[in-house]
Amino acid sequence: MLPHPPPRPSARSTVPPFRVMEILADVERLRSAGRDVVSLCAGEPSGGAPQAVARAAARVHARNEGLGYTPALGIEPLRRAVAGHYARWYGLDVAPEQVAVTTGASGALVLTFLAAFDVGDRVAVCRPGYPAYRNTLAALGAEVVELDCGAATRFQPTPAMLDAAVAAHGPLHGLVVAGPANPTGTVLEPAELAALARWCAEHGTRLISDEIYHGIVHAAPTGSGPRNGAPYRGTSAWEHDPDAVVISSFSKYWGMTGWRLGWALLPRDLVAPVDALAGNLSLCPPAAAQYAAVEAFSEEAYAEADRAVEQFARSRSLLLDALPALGWGESAPADGAFYLYADLGEQLERHGSSLEWCRRLLEAEAVAVVPGLDFDAARGHRTVRLSFAAGPAQVEEAVTRILRFQARS
Amino acid sequence: MLPHPPPRPSARSTVPPFRVMEILADVERLRSAGRDVVSLCAGEPSGGAPQAVARAAARVHARNEGLGYTPALGIEPLRRAVAGHYARWYGLDVAPEQVAVTTGASGALVLTFLAAFDVGDRVAVCRPGYPAYRNTLAALGAEVVELDCGAATRFQPTPAMLDAAVAAHGPLHGLVVAGPANPTGTVLEPAELAALARWCAEHGTRLISDEIYHGIVHAAPTGSGPRNGAPYRGTSAWEHDPDAVVISSFSKYWGMTGWRLGWALLPRDLVAPVDALAGNLSLCPPAAAQYAAVEAFSEEAYAEADRAVEQFARSRSLLLDALPALGWGESAPADGAFYLYADLGEQLERHGSSLEWCRRLLEAEAVAVVPGLDFDAARGHRTVRLSFAAGPAQVEEAVTRILRFQARS
Repeated sequence: MLPHPPPRPSARSTVPPFRVMEILADVERLRSAGRDVVSLCAGEPSGGAPQAVARAAARVHARNEGLGYTPALGIEPLRRAVAGHYARWYGLDVAPEQVAVTTGASGALVLTFLAAFDVGDRVAVCRPGYPAYRNTLAALGAEVVELDCGAATRFQPTPAMLDAAVAAHGPLHGLVVAGPANPTGTVLEPAELAALARWCAEHGTRLISDEIYHGIVHAAPTGSGPRNGAPYRGTSAWEHDPDAVVISSFSKYWGMTGWRLGWALLPRDLVAPVDALAGNLSLCPPAAAQYAAVEAFSEEAYAEADRAVEQFARSRSLLLDALPALGWGESAPADGAFYLYADLGEQLERHGSSLEWCRRLLEAEAVAVVPGLDFDAARGHRTVRLSFAAGPAQVEEAVTRILRFQARS
Repeated sequence: MLPHPPPRPSARSTVPPFRVMEILADVERLRSAGRDVVSLCAGEPSGGAPQAVARAAARVHARNEGLGYTPALGIEPLRRAVAGHYARWYGLDVAPEQVAVTTGASGALVLTFLAAFDVGDRVAVCRPGYPAYRNTLAALGAEVVELDCGAATRFQPTPAMLDAAVAAHGPLHGLVVAGPANPTGTVLEPAELAALARWCAEHGTRLISDEIYHGIVHAAPTGSGPRNGAPYRGTSAWEHDPDAVVISSFSKYWGMTGWRLGWALLPRDLVAPVDALAGNLSLCPPAAAQYAAVEAFSEEAYAEADRAVEQFARSRSLLLDALPALGWGESAPADGAFYLYADLGEQLERHGSSLEWCRRLLEAEAVAVVPGLDFDAARGHRTVRLSFAAGPAQVEEAVTRILRFQARS
């Protein structure tokens, strides 16, 4: 018998690593070595969960009972609470059985992609965009079509781009959108999302709307006045398309990144498939987090989360005010989320690429920033993403250090 | 333009649901209706996490700090602690960087399958076996080959079965084994695992060994005397094959099912692929659970987990002692884990199938048991799996009720 070659990694596992995670590791190493690192790289608030949620979690762990498997799509009280959230923020009547509680928005994305797309199906994503859309879709066998979304459309896709994508590649089985988006922070205006939803309905394309940054909006879009006196929280795809999948999470607005708890609103045809897939692929989302997260929908927790959003707004102003002094090129409007996505402009002449600029900045001044290549393989060598989730003090210190770095280099 | 059909669920999402999850939902509904259900269906201990772990989790949540994203493969102290566990139980020297902390063993399986296998790769699993192996592999595009493992080989695979599978289907890219296994509870003896590892090495087949039930062994196999006076905990694939992937979890031995925390030991070539996939597909495992789980490796927690294992042994004895009165057919030896997998024998003449028997038993006596079809589509209509993880009192009550059910029906 001929000798067999040893087993090797799969071809699909050669997804580019998510560089934010690598940089987080670098930050950890620098900190272990005693460096005082200011990190504007992670997309995570620093304030922790709302106190009511943290207290509830401490309580269920102190009791140490009933933390076994839950139903695959989550406990009933939490599914009902999430449904109630859509009545509160959007005036939407969501059936709790169409709410799937998941292991973070990440878990919702994996389950949705598997339930909606087969191997070889064509799915459009935006560039720049959150790299895990592209990498996860590719790992699960989808053909990813990147839509080149530039400043002219505030880095958001349009029906014309979708028409062009179909002409170039063939019919689209899916479209992933996000507003406010990562890394640009731009929102999807109600009319824009409506037009995309209409295009999807006309073309048999499954719309997947990542709304994880809803509630963190600093500049409400045109024609989106307050609803019943409440502030604008974002436009949900379910306001326009009940066949869409809405993805969200407790990570950003409620500041619960490490809890790994999110959800999807599922159109009726995807409930059973996602339930079956979840039961097999993950069994259930983390139990203690589910019990505690019911408290996220209390008045106290909403108020606390809103105070965190006010801090993001302060940090954002600090950063926008510093832009002239920084002297970079064009940046995205940062209307939502906690990201500033900017072209480094003339800095590139000195450092070659944003990746090199980021490395030198981390080395020289211990400020961590993510290079744009993570989000845009075509143009990201010019851009950086600054997360201002860490708070005003961190942003202020980072600006001081970046200005010093730029003056010296 | 021709009208487009609306989007529809993917073909790969038609995986059969994991019926244990469905039955758990039925149990929940009966309980809500006031029925006193005795559930022998879930594979989860009832005692909760070790107290030291629960206290640590309550503490980190009360502090409500530092619960952000962790590195994708887990926090360093936990990776080191898991490595230390392999020194303690197996005398193995495991490098912490080859430990991937994951969102349950489920998360480890998904990441491993993606990192090791491409679409169309052929992977062998055992029948009867844990259905999520088959369903997850299929959802991720692998071609699943079921090995018909019967009582003659204690429901475990052999090199001869693998030769036959290759002859019938072509080369195998992977083999998934488990010992103690779900649903049969049978262990893989050291010589058996060594032979399978040798076969895999000779055939370029990736061995994936699910060792989630290690530590819960009631009858040590032949030739596996105590190591340095310590009890037999199971044989790890890494004792025989450093190219194997070892999967395990805090769920069973430490009774932490709902925490969703597990791990994989990765051969060197799979570390980077799993890291990249984890960063994209899940970001990181639950943070609070990671910090708390370091305490699982304390002397106090090991001792507490061992006391839980003693309770499983008591429950097992109660069930085995009741077998003659139950009058069923052949059952698996139940040498490990907390499952009795049995043919219903002459009960089948009265009820037709184990599925029908389970339904009638739940209706008549509110005892929940899983029909074998979940684990064996070919022969499971004859069998049931009884989990005795819930403890001696539940097992005793269940036996009383089952005997009453059988006497009346």
